[in-house]
Amino acid sequence: MTISENWLIRETAFDPERLHHKETVFTIGNGYLGTRGAFEEGYPGATPATLIHGVWDDAPLFFTELANAPDWLPFVLTVDGERFGLDRGEVLCYERVLDMRAGTLRREVRWRSPAGREVDVSIERFASLADEHVLAIRYRVTPLNGPAKIELRAGLDAYTDNWGLRHIEWLAQGSSDPQYLWMHSRTLKTNIELAYAAHLAVDDISGVEYHFWDADGRPTSVAHFTLSQGQTATAAKLITIYTSRDTDDPLAAAQAKLERAVEAGYARLREAHIAAWADEWAQCNVTIEGDDAADRALRYSLFQLLIAAPRHDDRVSIGAKTLSGFGYRGHVFWDTEVFILPFFTYTRPEIARNLLLYRYHTLPGAHQNAGAEGYEGAYYAWESAETGVETTPKWWPHPDGSLVRIWTGDIELHIISDIAYAVDQYWRVTGDDDFMRDYGAEIILDTAAFWGSRVEYNAEADRYEVTDVIGPDEWHDHVDNNVYTNRMIRYHLGLAFEVLDWLDEHAPEKGAELRRRLDLSHERLARWRDIEAKIKINYDPETGLMEQFDGYFDLRDVDIADYEPRTQAMDTLLRESGIDPNDTQLLKQPDVIMLLCLLADAYDDRTRRANWDYYAPRTDHRYGSSLGPTFHAILACRLGMPEVAYEHFMHAAGADLEDSRGNAAEGIHGASCGGMWQAAVLGFAGLRVTPDGYRVEPHLPRHWKRLCFAFRHRGQPVEAVVENNKLGGGEKSA
Amino acid sequence: MTISENWLIRETAFDPERLHHKETVFTIGNGYLGTRGAFEEGYPGATPATLIHGVWDDAPLFFTELANAPDWLPFVLTVDGERFGLDRGEVLCYERVLDMRAGTLRREVRWRSPAGREVDVSIERFASLADEHVLAIRYRVTPLNGPAKIELRAGLDAYTDNWGLRHIEWLAQGSSDPQYLWMHSRTLKTNIELAYAAHLAVDDISGVEYHFWDADGRPTSVAHFTLSQGQTATAAKLITIYTSRDTDDPLAAAQAKLERAVEAGYARLREAHIAAWADEWAQCNVTIEGDDAADRALRYSLFQLLIAAPRHDDRVSIGAKTLSGFGYRGHVFWDTEVFILPFFTYTRPEIARNLLLYRYHTLPGAHQNAGAEGYEGAYYAWESAETGVETTPKWWPHPDGSLVRIWTGDIELHIISDIAYAVDQYWRVTGDDDFMRDYGAEIILDTAAFWGSRVEYNAEADRYEVTDVIGPDEWHDHVDNNVYTNRMIRYHLGLAFEVLDWLDEHAPEKGAELRRRLDLSHERLARWRDIEAKIKINYDPETGLMEQFDGYFDLRDVDIADYEPRTQAMDTLLRESGIDPNDTQLLKQPDVIMLLCLLADAYDDRTRRANWDYYAPRTDHRYGSSLGPTFHAILACRLGMPEVAYEHFMHAAGADLEDSRGNAAEGIHGASCGGMWQAAVLGFAGLRVTPDGYRVEPHLPRHWKRLCFAFRHRGQPVEAVVENNKLGGGEKSA
Repeated sequence: MTISENWLIRETAFDPERLHHKETVFTIGNGYLGTRGAFEEGYPGATPATLIHGVWDDAPLFFTELANAPDWLPFVLTVDGERFGLDRGEVLCYERVLDMRAGTLRREVRWRSPAGREVDVSIERFASLADEHVLAIRYRVTPLNGPAKIELRAGLDAYTDNWGLRHIEWLAQGSSDPQYLWMHSRTLKTNIELAYAAHLAVDDISGVEYHFWDADGRPTSVAHFTLSQGQTATAAKLITIYTSRDTDDPLAAAQAKLERAVEAGYARLREAHIAAWADEWAQCNVTIEGDDAADRALRYSLFQLLIAAPRHDDRVSIGAKTLSGFGYRGHVFWDTEVFILPFFTYTRPEIARNLLLYRYHTLPGAHQNAGAEGYEGAYYAWESAETGVETTPKWWPHPDGSLVRIWTGDIELHIISDIAYAVDQYWRVTGDDDFMRDYGAEIILDTAAFWGSRVEYNAEADRYEVTDVIGPDEWHDHVDNNVYTNRMIRYHLGLAFEVLDWLDEHAPEKGAELRRRLDLSHERLARWRDIEAKIKINYDPETGLMEQFDGYFDLRDVDIADYEPRTQAMDTLLRESGIDPNDTQLLKQPDVIMLLCLLADAYDDRTRRANWDYYAPRTDHRYGSSLGPTFHAILACRLGMPEVAYEHFMHAAGADLEDSRGNAAEGIHGASCGGMWQAAVLGFAGLRVTPDGYRVEPHLPRHWKRLCFAFRHRGQPVEAVVENNKLGGGEKSA
Repeated sequence: MTISENWLIRETAFDPERLHHKETVFTIGNGYLGTRGAFEEGYPGATPATLIHGVWDDAPLFFTELANAPDWLPFVLTVDGERFGLDRGEVLCYERVLDMRAGTLRREVRWRSPAGREVDVSIERFASLADEHVLAIRYRVTPLNGPAKIELRAGLDAYTDNWGLRHIEWLAQGSSDPQYLWMHSRTLKTNIELAYAAHLAVDDISGVEYHFWDADGRPTSVAHFTLSQGQTATAAKLITIYTSRDTDDPLAAAQAKLERAVEAGYARLREAHIAAWADEWAQCNVTIEGDDAADRALRYSLFQLLIAAPRHDDRVSIGAKTLSGFGYRGHVFWDTEVFILPFFTYTRPEIARNLLLYRYHTLPGAHQNAGAEGYEGAYYAWESAETGVETTPKWWPHPDGSLVRIWTGDIELHIISDIAYAVDQYWRVTGDDDFMRDYGAEIILDTAAFWGSRVEYNAEADRYEVTDVIGPDEWHDHVDNNVYTNRMIRYHLGLAFEVLDWLDEHAPEKGAELRRRLDLSHERLARWRDIEAKIKINYDPETGLMEQFDGYFDLRDVDIADYEPRTQAMDTLLRESGIDPNDTQLLKQPDVIMLLCLLADAYDDRTRRANWDYYAPRTDHRYGSSLGPTFHAILACRLGMPEVAYEHFMHAAGADLEDSRGNAAEGIHGASCGGMWQAAVLGFAGLRVTPDGYRVEPHLPRHWKRLCFAFRHRGQPVEAVVENNKLGGGEKSA
């Protein structure tokens, strides 16, 4: 069966200039770990990385980061003593394919050695979705112009680093039999143990000799054999990984698991893995018929989210760069709840639940954040890691040696309501009342308590204000009464009352417990009501226009067109002209428009249109935040402009695959991936969950034939198909 | 012949708690590189390091640091399959000896394996002083309770780091014969190539089999053989190192050098090495008869300076922590010129000349520093590295996550005159007129030009002032008219005129060239004269007392006794009591007392006494700066208080050997080592070089019998002996 190209990400030539970008693109994983698409044989300057959920280690300035775990990829081939590598000899043919349906990464190379030996090399790897502790590489080699002595070296590497910073300390290694090896290591500061076991086998070749190289930190199984011209050898390297987060004796667990993996063998492990992927895709695939590029790019985004999503661990979440790179150090932002989570909420609620439980488990850290600033309740960190204590760097080292002060960790507060919003959405879509009762309500109420203490009363105007914040648009810091922040606080407090009422009705004991434990006195609740009623919202009922924050409309109005053509973000260009972006109306990313998307039912078309017309032209879509385009696509759909939406959608699609923002080397743009799904399903298809059920309000681009997607509504799987009526909208058939 | 214990640093038991301290203590080197005393077989948490002069690589916040080069030590023993290590089995006997006369580090261990095999292991290493590219390890093993299968693994390790930060990128490795191997690597940012070659040979054992383990970055030669009970095998690992700073093809150079080293063999390489050390000690040894502890400690200080001193490279200098640890990142401070240099100036002027030429070669960096602040002339960096451009970190990351602003790189200016002073001293002691003509004069005049532009004229008082500086005492920053700084500027400008006159008389062409090139116009020189005459010096002719800076005497007078007993520095204790050390009269280190030592002939005993009585009790000798004690010793000698001086001298002696300051793990206290020599020779012996010759004015501690030292006076070697007359002074016999 030929697989559709739309399930494949294909690279037909190797470009060393794009090495790090492509390492990100070809990341594989299984929700337990992610491994960048570095080559098995290495490449000069490569940045191989395996990031395992929850394996944090201390890092200067950034507090903590996901440690680059020991590398399981090393697999070196020598042909008559010459080492195979893309940086030597001659690459005659080259292809690399990420098969998203199978969850495998394959490379086919025809190579001529410096001395003239020609070989075909075929390498496939996967991180099992059927058993997250199992990894495998299949290596095939065929000499083409004469017999050849082959050496295959399959090893582990403890000497990894995160952009130069080491986190792993090698402890011990060994081998009972030259085909088997194990390695034990731990993180330098947090003492998390990592145990790997591995096995090398060459199939159906006679006279294979195995050796073990016991070089510290680089244990290696070596197989020697001779192939005749045209003869193919197939070798398999199976690897198992456990950490002390998983079990008390990770080494024993890795060795036991390896035994079972070796018994099963590569082919059966691969079958189980592919079956797991088939099951996965059946629950969450989206198909765009009539637009292969959009179809493949969207699927790629979903693939990258699926491989980063913890399936068996509710103490971790998905970082801004997933498990695919060192950018943002693995820290978790609002990107997860607002951009990524809906995909899981609608298609894989078990995963969404894990991600939200991470926030529940980090409530103690959020209390610490609030207490440190003299506030009550739970104050979720702008950047969150193991404990939920704020891990945003205060200072960021600029390449020129200076330090840039980062304010987001101090004053970008809206994440607190964003998380409450995500809990609410999860509840409405899944109907998971147990979660709301046991965890969600506490998150919503505890964070509401933060707002109760944070919001400032302006007696003169008899209103509540929130000064000195950063809204979603980060080109404006230290602003007052950001409309997104304030409106979300109003929503959040309203939700708190709704949840309290629900608890009183459906779980009165839990309601009583939370009222007592969180000290939800009548006075406190009365204050919340007062804030909800009187918080300042910069909304002009005449025009429907919202002012992003106090004084925004008085700022300098810069026309981006005056700076075109450009290859840099507007804030950089402004600064070069001596203008502080803070003093202009230009936006890094949507702010009011985000609000119109999140609280969609609270606004009418006139309001949507007025704010779109004002803010969209003032946003740096191309080089501002990668969080922007998909939400512009969603609002454009709502406004009946699917072609405009499509431009934004495809712009988002290029962030990783095309590296259109130039920073894909640092990892996948997770928020953009999640936004792609939202743009497709909540935007183009216009799926709306209502108290009674759901409906679609499609606005498909003209050239799309059909949009099909799976989701679950209150536990029931739904297969939705939206046909394009060619008149600018779509028709539903679910 | 039995060697005196005073030439040996002996450790008779291994204490894992002191692992990092002892790695520093047992550092060996040869002026090309230094290698910490880590174990050949490794130890959990060890910090092995080889630092090579001039091999800088970029580091965040600290700009650049000496990169931890690939490790040449790895030498692993297995006995019947059990790996030897101090962290396993049982250590039955243990001794480690640094032989300072031979420049070798030796370890003798009797070890019982977990399975009960007993072996004697004897390991010796040296970095050849006869050929700085050659390193060697001799490994002996003897099974004690039955025959044993022995495996010896001699390898290289590319995976080093500086406190977690990696600087080395592995490039390639290989082996033509299992006894030989080579490895090629380079620094990550600065692209300095490092090439190592190595050879393993086991002597006089039949049936030795060699293998090569080609694990990337850890190439290893492995020897297998069987020993009968009581039989000793002796193996030698020879290593050669070149970098691209030495030659265009460092790998070829390392391999060629290895061929010659293998031909010579361990024994002859060792002989040549020991002969080189004998020659070295003949030129610079100091002997204190009647006080073994002082004698050994002083010799240890000299040994550590000698192994850090570049003999064939004038583009590097000795960092504050020599080549023995990561502290201060290899950066060069005034420690070198004021504390360390005199030892070399008096005993090994060729080395002193290299160190001063480093300052000459970094004049362009010093110009850049001056220009960046809007000043003229040469402004030497407070922390200097490859180019002389300022590399003091602006911010230092506190373990609590905050950043501490470091001001020394901005305003600790006195180093500029300190370097001029060192040039002057070198000239007077060595009579090296060529150096003064070709290099020294330019340093002195170019830095004088800086002062001409930096000093501020106070018209009201008709005097010159220097505001907002840090003097030698770093507990007071942003002070005005630090007396050390201002008095040294007066000295410096006076020296500039002296040198100009000398040039006019002895090298008029050079004088004319410098006047032209440095723009030494009449107006400029007139201003220098005016500054020299009118710079503010806080000196009270009534009392002889100097005020450390404007307003110092008005600061809070804290009695250190009120804080005893204590185990922390006074600045920490003050801060804990809510007192800013800046607001008190307590000193981290001598400031006025430094001035009295450097410009000794400018002051009389009344002045010395008055300032000693005032400042010595206000200085935190124990936990302040390690730069303090030796200069207190020098002044105490001058004041006829050798017993007081001795207390300070022995306090300095403990900084490295006893880790009395708790930070020896970060590297040798180089300034303290240099100060030890100065205290002995310029303090206790009272050596004075005069325009006519030299004399001694001894003040030996009562229990010292005799003080002998070698030095060179204007090219002539002198062997000096000072006998103690038991009446508190000493008598000369040279």
